This record gives sequence, C-alpha cells and structure tokens, in this order.
Amino acid sequence: MADGLAKHFSDRAKDMKASDVRELLKLLQVPDMISFAGGLPNPESFPVDIIREIADDVLRQDGAQALQYGITEGYAPLRDAIAERMKGKGMRVARENVLVVSGSQQVIDLMGKIFIDPKDIVLISAPTYLTALTGFGTYQAAFESVPIDENNMRMDLFEERMKALTRRAKTPEIVYVLPNFHNPAGVTMPEKSRRRLVDMASEYDFIILEDDPYGELRYRGDDIAPVKSFDDEGRVVYMGTFSKVLSPGLRVGYVLADEEILKKLIIAKQSTDVCTNVLGQRIAHEYVVRGHIDKQILKIRAIYGRKLDIMLKGMKEFMPSGLHWVEPDGGMFLWVTLPEGLNSPDLLESALKKRVAFVSGRAFFPDPRDGFGSMRLNFTHASDELITEGLKRLGAVVNQEMVSKWDRSRDAVDAQVMDAVKGNLVGKS
Amino acid sequence: MADGLAKHFSDRAKDMKASDVRELLKLLQVPDMISFAGGLPNPESFPVDIIREIADDVLRQDGAQALQYGITEGYAPLRDAIAERMKGKGMRVARENVLVVSGSQQVIDLMGKIFIDPKDIVLISAPTYLTALTGFGTYQAAFESVPIDENNMRMDLFEERMKALTRRAKTPEIVYVLPNFHNPAGVTMPEKSRRRLVDMASEYDFIILEDDPYGELRYRGDDIAPVKSFDDEGRVVYMGTFSKVLSPGLRVGYVLADEEILKKLIIAKQSTDVCTNVLGQRIAHEYVVRGHIDKQILKIRAIYGRKLDIMLKGMKEFMPSGLHWVEPDGGMFLWVTLPEGLNSPDLLESALKKRVAFVSGRAFFPDPRDGFGSMRLNFTHASDELITEGLKRLGAVVNQEMVSKWDRSRDAVDAQVMDAVKGNLVGKS
Repeated sequence: MADGLAKHFSDRAKDMKASDVRELLKLLQVPDMISFAGGLPNPESFPVDIIREIADDVLRQDGAQALQYGITEGYAPLRDAIAERMKGKGMRVARENVLVVSGSQQVIDLMGKIFIDPKDIVLISAPTYLTALTGFGTYQAAFESVPIDENNMRMDLFEERMKALTRRAKTPEIVYVLPNFHNPAGVTMPEKSRRRLVDMASEYDFIILEDDPYGELRYRGDDIAPVKSFDDEGRVVYMGTFSKVLSPGLRVGYVLADEEILKKLIIAKQSTDVCTNVLGQRIAHEYVVRGHIDKQILKIRAIYGRKLDIMLKGMKEFMPSGLHWVEPDGGMFLWVTLPEGLNSPDLLESALKKRVAFVSGRAFFPDPRDGFGSMRLNFTHASDELITEGLKRLGAVVNQEMVSKWDRSRDAVDAQVMDAVKGNLVGKS
Repeated sequence: MADGLAKHFSDRAKDMKASDVRELLKLLQVPDMISFAGGLPNPESFPVDIIREIADDVLRQDGAQALQYGITEGYAPLRDAIAERMKGKGMRVARENVLVVSGSQQVIDLMGKIFIDPKDIVLISAPTYLTALTGFGTYQAAFESVPIDENNMRMDLFEERMKALTRRAKTPEIVYVLPNFHNPAGVTMPEKSRRRLVDMASEYDFIILEDDPYGELRYRGDDIAPVKSFDDEGRVVYMGTFSKVLSPGLRVGYVLADEEILKKLIIAKQSTDVCTNVLGQRIAHEYVVRGHIDKQILKIRAIYGRKLDIMLKGMKEFMPSGLHWVEPDGGMFLWVTLPEGLNSPDLLESALKKRVAFVSGRAFFPDPRDGFGSMRLNFTHASDELITEGLKRLGAVVNQEMVSKWDRSRDAVDAQVMDAVKGNLVGKS
C-alpha cells in the first residue's frame, strides 16, 4: 500500500483490531491440538443427507426462484414458519415481525446501525459475547457493564447502575442480554429477572436486545419463557439462528421486532447485503416444514448433553482444587474461574505448548484489565475422547502453573528476606 | 410500538428511507405488468442443473465442512480461483488480496464502514448506482457528483471539481466509479480516462472504488482493462460478483484490495456476518474450477445481447422522436433522456396504468431535484416478446404524454391570451 493510505480510515476503523480469539483460532491448525477454544457446533450433528435431499428438491422444483434475488425481508414462507415456532415460545409475533438475516451476528450490526450514534450507551453483562463488543464497537458505542453471577446478569447491580446513569442523564439505548446459557458464562436468567428487565425497559425507556442462539440447546431443567414473551411495548428485539440447530455455514438467522423497528432494520439490511442467501433460506424453510427440526434438536441435545457430562466429569477428575465453575443447563460453554494468582493468558501460553487450547476470559470484557482470572471452555466441538484427553492435559498445565506460582511466591518471599537482610547490611554500612 | 421509541433511532437511521424503487418493485406483482424496472438477471440464464449437481457433490463429499462456519476471508480455494481469474484481466492480485463477501453490495457497506466518517466526501458520477447512495448514505457521507456523458464520468469536469475541492481542502475519501456499462447509464469509460483516474488518485490522494458487476457482460466491442490494472499504489479497490454470471440468490461476491485495506475489510466483515455462506462459496468455487463459467458467460452474452438488440429495435420502432439514448455495449440497462417538458415520475404513473414499468431517473441522483428528465430501462429480465410488447405500450404512453403536454402548453397560451384580454377589459373598466 502507498505510504499513508491508513490515514484515510474512518475513526471507527482506526479502533478495529483483529480479536485475540481470531488470532488464536489460526493456531488451532497445529496437528494434535485439542481445542476448547472455538464456538463451533459439532459437524457430527449436521443433517447432511437431509440437507442434500432438500437442496436437490428445491433446485429441481423451483431452481429459478431459489437462485434469483429475494426480497430483503426474507422468503415469506420461512418468515411464517419462524413466526409460528416463536409463537410456541410465547412471543406474540407474525410474519410482519420477522426479518431473515445472514446469521444472527448481522442483527447486532443492524441494531448498531439503526440505534447507536457515537458515545451512545450499550449496557452489557461482563463478561459478554465477544462479537457483540466488536459489533457495537464498530458504531462507537460506549459500554456500561454489569457483573454476572449464577443467575446471569446481577439484577441488583443493574438497578443500581440504571439509577446512577439516570442521575447523569445517560440511560442506555440498548441493553444487550443473553438470557439462556450465556456465552461465555453458561448461566441462565430466571423468569423473575426477565420480567423485571422488561418492566425496567419501560420505566427507564430503553430497548432490550435478547440474543438467544442456544435457547433450544437445553440439557437439564425446564425451559424459561423468553424476555420478549413478557413484552407489551415492542421494546424487546429478539434474535435467533439456525446456526446451532441446523448449520452455521448456511448463514441463516432471524430477528423478531416491533414493526416500526423492523422496517428500519429492513432498510438498513437492504443497503448492506440486499437479502439473505436464498438457497440457504429455502433449505431452512423446508427443514422446518418437513418436520425435521424438532427431531434434530433432540438429537443435538443428546450429543451435547453427553459431552457436557463428560466435560464436567473430566473437570472434577483432572482439575486441582481452587478452580470454580457453574454447571450450565445448556448451551456450548463452561466458564471457569481460576484460583487467585493464576492468570489465563499465561495459562493459555503454557496450555498451547501442551497442545490444548481455550479462550482467556479477557476476550469477553470491554475493559482490557478484566478477565485474567477466567477461561471459557467449549464442550460441543471436540470428540468425547478428546474432551477427556484435553482436560487431562489442561489439568496438568494448571497444576504445573500452580506449583510454579507457589515457587514464585516462595522465591518472592525469599527475595524479600534477602532484600531485608541486604537492607540491614546497607543500613549498617 | 410504544410511543416515542423512534426517538431512539440513530441519526443515520432517521435519514434512512425506503427507496422509491423498492416501493415500485412491490407494484410489479400486478398481473400483466411488463417490467423494465428491476435489475434482475434472467432466470433462463441460471445453470440450475449444474448447480444442483455441484451442490449434491459438495454435500456428499464434504458436507461437514460445507455446512460449518468458514473463515471470514472466504473459502481459500475460491479466493485462489478468483485471484487467478482477475489476474487474467490484468490485475496483480493473489489470494491475500481477495475477500469473499455476501454479494458485492456488502463491499459498499464495508468500505463505508472503514473509510467514511460523517461528512466525509464520496465522489460519484450522477447518475449513479442507487444503492451506493443509500449504502454510503448510511455512513453519513457527503456526496459530490460529476455528470456523465457517452464516455461515463466527465473527466474534464471531474478534474475541475477536484481542483475546486482541493482549494476548499475537501478532497474525497472515495471516488466511486462504474467503468463498464454503468448502472443506470449503460456507458463505458475509455482506457485513457481509467489511466487518468488512477494518476489523479495518486496526485490528489484518494481511494477509487471500482464497481464492476457487469464487466463480463459485453455484447459488442473489445474489453477494456479494469481501472485496478493500472494501479501501482494499492489505491484501487475492485468489487465483483457471481450474481450476474451465476446466481444472485447465492449472495457471493468479492473484493480485491491492497492487503492493509483488505485486513480492515475482513475485521469489519467479521463483526457484520462472520463469513459468507459456505455452501454458496463452495458452489461458486466448483462452478469455476470445473470450467463452466466461461461457457456460461458466453451463453449469457448471447441471451442478453439478443435482448438488447430487441430493445434497441423496439425503441426505434415505438418511440416518438425527441427521446435520446446511448446504445450500451453491455450490461443490463438502457438510459433514456426524455424530451424537454416530459417528466419521468408523471410518465411512470401513466405507464403503470398501461401495465408497463421502468425506474424514473430520479432514483439515481443524490440531489432530489435531478433526474426528472430520464428513465432507466432494464433489458435482461423480460422475455423477448414482452420487451417488444412493453416498448409498444411505453411508446404509446410517451406519445400520449407528449400530446397532453402540447395540449397543456396550448392551453397555457390560450390562458395567457385570455388573461391578456381580461386584463385589457379590467384595465378599461
């Protein structure tokens, strides 16, 4: 590039950095690496043969339409099928509330586009979904973060924060939540908190963006109604996806919103990518209406539930005491808190040498000083055997780090004694 | 929606309007409507059987990968295949210069994202591609426009404008051009202007965005090397697509750029939609490497070239004198200038009543006062018979409007005479 073309970049682009996770994923090509790092579905779960059959039928019966531009809103029968399924979860929606998107990540981009001016506040839990940070960051959002506990976002702290922000006349535009099997933290928001959140949205006048990629991947306990099901005012925008229950490579997701908001999302999408790929939409549609999807969800739940059990068993077996985690009821991730004094970037460096990878908690916090004491482990992608082998390796690395830490702190004590002794000597001289 | 949620929209969203064309496209569902309005490829050209065969092979042989997330950059063998083809057009590019995107429209969005701060200047030809206006408009670009003639953008006026802008220290960030078979104007930029544009980019320090969706759809004359082929400084970003030569519903396009720019585009895409749908990429890749694409281009050229001839013949046969157009050498559109006094929105209203549609020139200018004297006719989508029938209808409407205009102007003269007479009477009383 000619020197100095970089100066042409927009302010938002100057702040864009390749994420650590992205860089990390490149390392995973190394042979023998066992990865708990990504957030990939297990390809074992993909219904390849059914998709092949459907693709063939769609192209045979309606190829000209399936290969033509579609309208931005999405393929109407797919919008209907999505509305129908979402009604089953208690949301009052119709076709007019559904926009089909190019994967649910696109919803974050479009929501940023239509709601966020530079310095507008997006309130998130900390930790939160990494690419929500970069997505809203693109629109130069200011982040306010509220800690989580085993019940997802801490509602008491959220209320305090809202009061404090209101006093400074700085209420958020968007409150972004992951109520089910939070990424990265795995925790689920109880119904009471969901109701409270909707009430507060009305009271404080903000929009809730409910991100629910894993809602159907529950392995224990009972479903909890979505935040949007408690919404009477059109304040909750709900995003879902076929990536986790069908195939991420199809890039088909959806957003449910009040009509006025949906209209703006549609206009924004129109100049972004015209429409979601039509063949992918047609495949998703047939997959739903032919009745495969519920069976598929049961199948995925069985596979991932088993993998979660294997991971929890391995954690107990191979990890030294001092590490903590909340057992998730679903989703794809286990969030682990390290003992005082260990830090996850160093641990990751050692782990990679032993051919096992995870994501340091750092990636999931807006403040770069946070997240050193935690790590995210994905349990859906590795084979059952490799989960156990990977935890064995990781356990050994953690043990080793704890020993070194102990050695270092002993060395530090020794050094202090030595310094004290030297000080005395110097003092005397 | 709760009253007043609209106040939460970002400044950019408040300016977003559904485009006239979008609204118009909805009217086209009326039975018997002959449409010259859209920019749709003819589905007759889609290689449905080959795509069906390829989809089947890809899913059979590598289903797990084809349905999994892909990397943001795009499927590596497709990037290679694109680089290879583009080298054949004289561009010095390798895999590292190629990003696969979700249709080339996405390039405009990503370029806006990484280069445009509010009020930054994007220089365009006037008219220009409608969705470049809305796409850059999303990033609150300020537009400077330069008129076109039969040689595409008027280079003399462009030079004058650049000098004037430089005096005001307001040079554009991006100069957006459609050198081949311009949309909507159909005109092509000569090699000399392309070379000059690249020299000026260096001299005045701007980025050129070269949009080339129709480059391979040439029906007469010889290919002209792309603007990017004359670029030594990485100042030209080139965008292309499989939409016009394979299928728009697959949503697979590409951008070629200097590595430093490409890196930012990749990071921006990552938080926008993660990756382009993988099945579509795999289909496009196989379509190219199995050697279908060049035969397909020949086939499309034959179909569209014939349709262009039919349209040009129909124009001569059915249009009254006083209308002007430049015969395009390729692409999808004929741009027609109306005689003084006719205006295209009124003409469109009358035309729709006679069941024939086009797009008023208004849609293609940033200034809402422009474009009343022109219309865009698409010649690729309608069947051969309907092109002729549509022009017959449109010719009748134009004739009728010219007669009414004549009547109106005669009425106006009569009224003036009457006023004068009345004035005399009043004066006398």
